[in-house]
Amino acid sequence: MSTQSASKDSYPYQNEPTWSKSEKAIARTAFDAALGREFHEVIQKTKQMANSIQQSADLWELEHYLTQRRKEIDRKYDYRYSRLTQVFGRLLYERRLREEELGGLGADKLKSIRSLAKFLAEDKAA
Amino acid sequence: MSTQSASKDSYPYQNEPTWSKSEKAIARTAFDAALGREFHEVIQKTKQMANSIQQSADLWELEHYLTQRRKEIDRKYDYRYSRLTQVFGRLLYERRLREEELGGLGADKLKSIRSLAKFLAEDKAA
Repeated sequence: MSTQSASKDSYPYQNEPTWSKSEKAIARTAFDAALGREFHEVIQKTKQMANSIQQSADLWELEHYLTQRRKEIDRKYDYRYSRLTQVFGRLLYERRLREEELGGLGADKLKSIRSLAKFLAEDKAA
Repeated sequence: MSTQSASKDSYPYQNEPTWSKSEKAIARTAFDAALGREFHEVIQKTKQMANSIQQSADLWELEHYLTQRRKEIDRKYDYRYSRLTQVFGRLLYERRLREEELGGLGADKLKSIRSLAKFLAEDKAA
C-alpha cells in the first residue's frame, strides 16, 4: 500500500496520455470556449429569473439556482491533464462542445472522448 | 440547574411581558410591514445586480449577497413574543419601522423598544 501511495507523487502517471504542446493549446481553447458558453447561459438565465422575481420565495430560488450551478461548474470544469478526456467527453455529450473544436488532438484522446460521450448518452437513454 | 432547565418549558416565562390580543395584532402588522419592506429592498437590489452582470464573478457576488441577506433576515425577524421587543428595537434603529406603527403597544414595551433602538444608535456612534 505504501508503495502505491508514494507513486501518486511521481510524475508523469504511468497510464495517462501525455499532451503535446499543440494539443495543450487546442485543449485550452476548447475548454475556455465551453466554459464561456456555460457562463453566458447562466448569466442569461439569472437575468431572466431576477426579472421575474415577485416574492421572497423567488429570491431564494435564484440563490439556490446560483449555488447549484456554481458547484456543478466547479466540478465539471477540471483542467487537469489527467482529467481532460473525461471533461471533454462530458462536454461533447452535453453539446457544449462540438467535435470540430477538438480537431488536432491525438486519435487516442479523441477515441476516449467520443467513447465517454457515447457511454453517457446510452446511460441516459437506458 | 435541572430546575432552571425545566422552567424553560413552563409558560409564560416569569420575566417576560405578556401580549394582549390587540397588542399581538399591532405587532403582527408592524412586523409584516417591516419584513415586506425589507424583501422589497432585496428584490430591487437583486434585479439591479442581475441586470449589471457581465462576468462569472458578478454571478457569485449575487449569490453571496442573496445568501447573506437570507441569513440576516432569518436571524432578525424572530416572531417569538419573548424576542419581539428586541426585534422591534432593532427595526426602529434601522428605520425599517416608524414609531407610529407600534402605537397601541403597552408603555412598558414601547419603553424597552425605544431604549434598545437608542442603545444600538449610541453603540454604532461610539
